[in-house]
Formats: sequence, C-alpha cells, structure tokens
Amino acid sequence: MPRPPRPRAIHGVLIDISGVLMIDGVSLPGAPEALQRLRDAGLPLRFVTNTTRRPPATLVERLQDGGFDVTPDEVFAAPTAALEAAKTRGLHPWLVVHEGLRPMFNDIAADRAENADAVVIGDAGDGFSYAALNDAFRVLMNTESPALIAMGVNRFFREGDGRLSLDAGPFVRLLEEATGLQSEVVGKPSQGFFDAALHSIATSAEHAAMIGDDLRDDVGGAQACGLHGILVRTGKYRPEDESDRTVTPDVICDDFVAAVESILDKRA
Amino acid sequence: MPRPPRPRAIHGVLIDISGVLMIDGVSLPGAPEALQRLRDAGLPLRFVTNTTRRPPATLVERLQDGGFDVTPDEVFAAPTAALEAAKTRGLHPWLVVHEGLRPMFNDIAADRAENADAVVIGDAGDGFSYAALNDAFRVLMNTESPALIAMGVNRFFREGDGRLSLDAGPFVRLLEEATGLQSEVVGKPSQGFFDAALHSIATSAEHAAMIGDDLRDDVGGAQACGLHGILVRTGKYRPEDESDRTVTPDVICDDFVAAVESILDKRA
Repeated sequence: MPRPPRPRAIHGVLIDISGVLMIDGVSLPGAPEALQRLRDAGLPLRFVTNTTRRPPATLVERLQDGGFDVTPDEVFAAPTAALEAAKTRGLHPWLVVHEGLRPMFNDIAADRAENADAVVIGDAGDGFSYAALNDAFRVLMNTESPALIAMGVNRFFREGDGRLSLDAGPFVRLLEEATGLQSEVVGKPSQGFFDAALHSIATSAEHAAMIGDDLRDDVGGAQACGLHGILVRTGKYRPEDESDRTVTPDVICDDFVAAVESILDKRA
Repeated sequence: MPRPPRPRAIHGVLIDISGVLMIDGVSLPGAPEALQRLRDAGLPLRFVTNTTRRPPATLVERLQDGGFDVTPDEVFAAPTAALEAAKTRGLHPWLVVHEGLRPMFNDIAADRAENADAVVIGDAGDGFSYAALNDAFRVLMNTESPALIAMGVNRFFREGDGRLSLDAGPFVRLLEEATGLQSEVVGKPSQGFFDAALHSIATSAEHAAMIGDDLRDDVGGAQACGLHGILVRTGKYRPEDESDRTVTPDVICDDFVAAVESILDKRA
C-alpha cells in the first residue's frame, strides 16, 4: 500500500509559465489574481520556464501585459541558462534556436559551422528544417568532444488553438541518435536549474513546490530534486497523465487557481 | 579470447546499393565488373536497400545506367516493404516521405490527417520540415493504437560531395520520443526484410553474406539474422567503425571489389 504523502510546510513556490499562467500569450482565467494571493501570503516565488521561442525579456513583458505582477529577476529561463553555460565554458556554439533568440547569443555564437565547438538547441519551431538539423549534425560529427547543450527536453506543448505541437525534446533526441552523443540539459528538469531558482529564494527543495503542466519535466523533474510536484489540468495536460507509470504528482489541480488554493490551504 | 570465425561456405550474397555500388548515382570504380564476377561464379544475388529518396524502379534504372547487370525483381527495397506492410494490414497512412515516393502510395495514403491510422516514414530529405513532422506527430497522438512504420532507421549516409547527411533513423526516433510509440522497421535491419530476400534465392542465412557500408544496420543487422557480415570502407564508412563496441564485422574490405574477391577466394 502506498504511504500517504507526508504533510510538508511549503515556504517557496516555483511556477511554470506557459500552459500554467498563460497559453499563447493569453492569461488563464483568475491566474493573475491567484498569483497575487500567493504574494499576499508572503511566499517567495520564482518563475521557471523552458519557453524558448522568445527571449526571457519578452516573456516578462507578456506576463506583465497579461496582468501578472512579475519582475525580470524572478524569472529563471532556459535560454539564459544555456547562454551562461556556454559562456562559462568559453564555447562558441552553433545555434538551432528560434530567430528571436539569436541576438542573445551574438557575442559567443560561431560565425561559421567550421568554427563551432558546440550546438545549442531550443524550440526552433519552423527553424527546425532539414538543412538546419543537418548543419548541427555535421558540427557535432566534425568536432572533437563537442557539447550538445539542450535548453529543455520537453516533448510537446499545447498551442492556443488547442492542438499539441512538437517541442525541443524530440529534436534533441534526433541529434543524440544521429551522433551517439548525450545532451546536457540546462533548463528543467536539470537539478542545477531548480537549484538556482531555489537558492535565489533561500528555500530548500523539501519546503518548495513546483506548479507545472508538464508531467515529466515539471512535476517529475521537480520531485526528483526533492520538491513537491503539483500538476495542473491546463496547457499540455492530458487525462492519461493521471495514470502514468513513471510519475505520480503529489497533487493534481484543475488549474493554477486551484493549485494556489491547495498550497494556501495547507498553510491555514 | 574471441573464437576465430568459423569458415563458412557462401551460397548467396545480399548487397547494399548506396555507398557500396554507387554514391549519388555514380558507380564506384570496378564495381560493375566485380558484380559480374559474382554472377559468373554462379552465386545467387539480391540487392537490399533502405534508399528511400527515390522509388525502387528509378534505383534499378540508375544501376543499369551505371553499368550494373540488375533486374527489378532482384531488388528488395524498403519503400516496397513499407507499402506491402501497410496494404496487408489495410492501413491508410500519413506519409513523411520524399516527394518522389508519394505516387507509390497513391492507392492507400490518407487524403487528410484526420483519416490516417498510421504514419509511414522514410528519408524525406528537405521534406522533413517542422510542419510535416508536427502533422505526423498529431496523427499519432490523435489516433487509437496507431502504427508507426519506418522504412529504415539508418542514422546517416554520405553525400556525393563527401559530407555526411541525416538519414531517416533520427527522425523516426524523434517521433518515438514525442509520442512514446515504438516504430516497426520494415527495411534493414529487420529480420523479415533479410528473410524475404534470402527466401527468394533459397539460401539459408548461415550460408549467405551481406555486403554493406552501414556498420549497424547492414553488418550488425545481417549478423543478428545469422548472415556473414562484410563491411566495406566506402560510403558512410568511418574509421571508428573498426573499433565499435557493439558490432564487429566478419570481414572488412576496402571496397565492393575487394569484398567480392574475399567471397570468391573462400570458394576457390
């Protein structure tokens, strides 16, 4: 018989953005107000996102335009983590990223494939052409000990029109399969990414909750790092997530509003 | 200590085409004459190919134009195997294939994604766009028990200009990763494909040799089915193939000419 989950005091909250607070730039009903209730309760918050189709700065603007009280320093974004990882190691990456992300990497990106010693890959959307993937493949095959830095390995996300679309993860696996290399993931579900966000709010994993719509990379990833994992039934959520054999969320809530209530109830 | 390979009588030969007999439509030096020597020795032959950028009929024409004595019924091609697999099961597949292959599937291909119950994938080349992969992903996610039929899972091939390019395999893995499904491979290295070719020349696997340039899918695949696996140092061959931890060819030859000599020497 499974043990009942031990009650935990939640002292800090990590929140996924896309599919949880907003979908395709539109705020989910009641989400801005629910966020405010978390703030009013004095809980430190961070936003942890693997969204890689737009730069983090644009993401913050969209949140603010959508009625969310968010400051740029509260957002931990996978593109920033990828940039820092490449910079720290002095790499000159070849980019397989959305056009909107290229300027972030201007200072370090390789000007030509022959000069690259790494590949940085995010959700390039329509930029995932055969030619672009082939270029990245050749960089990895022609370089000695190349780095394959993945912003995330999320498999799919839900579009504003309700349809699922391919995210970066399957394309990362494509390059791994073709080259025999193992990618280094810098966004969720990497421990370093969760740790950095938790460190900035001086909260231990044990006393933190992650709210997300991605069963494997938000909920499972956070749980593997010791956090409380809360799955919301919005965004890319699918009913089969509730009977998954590999990840069992600590809590499942209809949406972000209900997730906030669940956290605040525990504190009451 | 590894056992020395037991000597075997070779009574039939399976031959890969691209990278072994031709590269990008150009015959390799001496290859047509070497093929003739195999025929003169009375060895039954079959050509087993995972080439999916052109229909099998075109492939036969190119071989004949290149000076090879080949008839259409001697060629076992992955696209034909995919077509037969889909037909036998009454499937209406969504196609992720090269434009040149579409007409082969005219009778059974789904006219709209909503009507598809399977995906058939080959090396679509520039047809591997984000939109095309996303369409296939959605067919697989929105269909109950869909079939994912892969013509091959080869990782890469060598272009006429010497550069390596992505083959179908990594794209098959992409769809597997995104959907959680397992593909069914109908070309090399599937046992059914080798078996069909061997059956047509009434030769048992034990007395047959496979000559190929793909370490994993030609040589390893054939060995797993009981054939003698001969690797040639042309096409996609890379020096590291000779120290691979998973596949050790029975024989490694500089090219098809040398491979034929090695087989005929054993019979002398």
